Amino acid sequence: MNPDASAQKLPHVVIIGGGFGGITAARAFRKQPVRLTLIDRRNHHLFQPLLYQVATAALNPSDIASPIRRILRGQNNASVILGEAVSIDTRQKIVHLADGEVAYDYLILATGSTHSYFGHDQRSEAAPGLKTVEDAIEIRRRVLVAYEAAEREVDDSEVRGWLTFVIVGAGPTGVEMAGALAEISRRVLERDFRRIDPGRARITLIEAGPRVLPAMSPQSSEHALAQLRHLGVEVILNSAVSQIDDRSVTHSKDRIDTRTVIWAAGVAASSLGKALGAETDRAGRVMVNQDLSVAGSDGVFVIGDLASIKSDGKPVPGLSPAAMQEGRHAAKNILHLIRGESTKPFRYLDKGTLATIGRAAAVGDIGQLHVSGLIAWLMWLFVHIFFLIGFRNRFFVISEWAWVYLRNDRGARLITGDVEPLLERGERPEDRDRLLSR
Amino acid sequence: MNPDASAQKLPHVVIIGGGFGGITAARAFRKQPVRLTLIDRRNHHLFQPLLYQVATAALNPSDIASPIRRILRGQNNASVILGEAVSIDTRQKIVHLADGEVAYDYLILATGSTHSYFGHDQRSEAAPGLKTVEDAIEIRRRVLVAYEAAEREVDDSEVRGWLTFVIVGAGPTGVEMAGALAEISRRVLERDFRRIDPGRARITLIEAGPRVLPAMSPQSSEHALAQLRHLGVEVILNSAVSQIDDRSVTHSKDRIDTRTVIWAAGVAASSLGKALGAETDRAGRVMVNQDLSVAGSDGVFVIGDLASIKSDGKPVPGLSPAAMQEGRHAAKNILHLIRGESTKPFRYLDKGTLATIGRAAAVGDIGQLHVSGLIAWLMWLFVHIFFLIGFRNRFFVISEWAWVYLRNDRGARLITGDVEPLLERGERPEDRDRLLSR
Repeated sequence: MNPDASAQKLPHVVIIGGGFGGITAARAFRKQPVRLTLIDRRNHHLFQPLLYQVATAALNPSDIASPIRRILRGQNNASVILGEAVSIDTRQKIVHLADGEVAYDYLILATGSTHSYFGHDQRSEAAPGLKTVEDAIEIRRRVLVAYEAAEREVDDSEVRGWLTFVIVGAGPTGVEMAGALAEISRRVLERDFRRIDPGRARITLIEAGPRVLPAMSPQSSEHALAQLRHLGVEVILNSAVSQIDDRSVTHSKDRIDTRTVIWAAGVAASSLGKALGAETDRAGRVMVNQDLSVAGSDGVFVIGDLASIKSDGKPVPGLSPAAMQEGRHAAKNILHLIRGESTKPFRYLDKGTLATIGRAAAVGDIGQLHVSGLIAWLMWLFVHIFFLIGFRNRFFVISEWAWVYLRNDRGARLITGDVEPLLERGERPEDRDRLLSR
Repeated sequence: MNPDASAQKLPHVVIIGGGFGGITAARAFRKQPVRLTLIDRRNHHLFQPLLYQVATAALNPSDIASPIRRILRGQNNASVILGEAVSIDTRQKIVHLADGEVAYDYLILATGSTHSYFGHDQRSEAAPGLKTVEDAIEIRRRVLVAYEAAEREVDDSEVRGWLTFVIVGAGPTGVEMAGALAEISRRVLERDFRRIDPGRARITLIEAGPRVLPAMSPQSSEHALAQLRHLGVEVILNSAVSQIDDRSVTHSKDRIDTRTVIWAAGVAASSLGKALGAETDRAGRVMVNQDLSVAGSDGVFVIGDLASIKSDGKPVPGLSPAAMQEGRHAAKNILHLIRGESTKPFRYLDKGTLATIGRAAAVGDIGQLHVSGLIAWLMWLFVHIFFLIGFRNRFFVISEWAWVYLRNDRGARLITGDVEPLLERGERPEDRDRLLSR
């Protein structure tokens, strides 16, 4: 049961968070003279860039999620703890969990970000975001239930409300969701219903800024906009959302009757960042030193979406490649410290950015090069399958995708959980007695 | 939107329930001069014989569940309604839903059965049953969390409680669950943990009767028992369970400390049977006429697990082949009635019974023939894949299985939903401060 006594003397590195940053850091300690403990409140690493595929019924949760234990199975110096870190005592060097505590010599904090409603947290019920497997299953449920409710509805304006899907925020997640929803309604569900025509569904993407994919080049934004419109997505730019409720979304230019709103607008850093007591930026990210360590906290490093850092004078973006590079770098710096050497500053290597819009539609910025359409999509496909952790997942994801794209059939169209509450959401009492038989 | 006027005059057949019986009945009306409406409170047909594979992380929910709409997509006379039937007015011929109503000319009731706690409904929290996708995900979550909690636990007797899994009831579901849990702990999770040895897990199957698989031949029971013991399952026969709580199961012979109990002991007919006002048997099943119609209810037929009927003097078993034969027969009888002909009595054709125990382990009774071991397992595999509705599912299930069996790797090992409540279930306050770092 117990590792040999000599292992007890090795420095104990604790990593909180099993996302891209945390997993990459953990792997960088492979065969190094440390004891490693990775703590996560979920048992799985999630390949978040493909989460929208679960939300739109193309992939199964287990296609894009892999148990952290399995990922680190071969790494003998690594333990995994399922638990929620609630605070950090940087003086005593102890991580407090909801139900226990773990002492560390070195700590890597990689708890990432969550969606932010910019102070309007009551919106989370009417407009769920997309960060976890549970979020994706909830959005899938809402989308599928909306079509079911529309099929049952006799009032035409009610049908329109159910068949209107609004996505708030045109970053990569918003653009992917809008494209995938357009494909579902136009191609997949077409023959499934008798009374409604899913192809009539209205997919609206609302963005407060002047262009979609604001983090990419203006050229890519233009291409993405054209591809979204070609798919039948209505894109509304320069319009901020002021109100969301069960039956509508109000933005600067209009009010839209809708029963399904998806929030893809803002991210906020994990609250654990503030627990360090270090300086944070407006989004709650920890201002880290150039070597990714935290001023005033001995042996603590912060990486990924939770870290605020500049490289070559530009902020490092909140993308998985950045988190992975930082994870590897923080691990190296800890090994430097263990050997009594000095740490090295982090430099971000930008290998380019890709975003997908739909089948055979994507855009990419690689240095000065801008690609779009089929070629960008093939690059996106290659990169995403290549980086999907665990061969099993890769194999199944390729098969599922081949099926989805060749047959226009999304197999994971399951509604699980309770259907009634959603059908009843905001329903007027007089609706309940309508005769449904035609 | 509206079907042509002539369709409005066709007789309206309503089927409640999209299980094996309901789906088979619906398909039997293909190209027949009726309007058909299938009502189910879930949007998917579930291939229940493989549900234990989801509960034990081998398959994904969508591998064994298929949207009812997709199954009936090509059948132009069929509509599908997502809704919950709560009562039936057999005089007015109206089905009342939780939120609407549907009029019928002919009704096929196929709402099946649920698990029964024999009056101890409070057991459902401590010992979930396995009937729905949600049940399977909940059991999967509890099993995986148990290993996680054991890995974190420092007290040896607590570790034993977490690593003890008790299955109550040795029918096909109980036997399959016990076999699959034994395989997970002995083969799959072996290398994933650092402190515990999953191979030490205790899997106990408790049966009140004198043999496992009581519905099969004594020879098959013997073979199944030997195969279960070979897999390391502890089988306790002739012992009734008297008490179940968060931390233990008490049966006639002993008390077992366990944190995970799975209920596979009893089934009760769907409560909708009683709503007809017809005679029911002790398990709540509707006593149907020999032609599957219900005395006193004009145009109503009951099939599948909800129907109590004898064929050749023997009760028809609650198995999917029987439900499918009854579904086809009820549909034919309704078509007879529509044409002004008389109905025909139902006769059950017993093609044999198969039950699986684990990898390459199964038993089968085919007439006077009893098979077991690899040959029975191959037959089981063939039959189950052959009948899995929807080719996509078949393809993916074969690939997933090939992976599971060749690599001993169960990919769907995701814990979704809230972890904390279960970790805390029955936990003593003094546990909370234990130092987890080793």
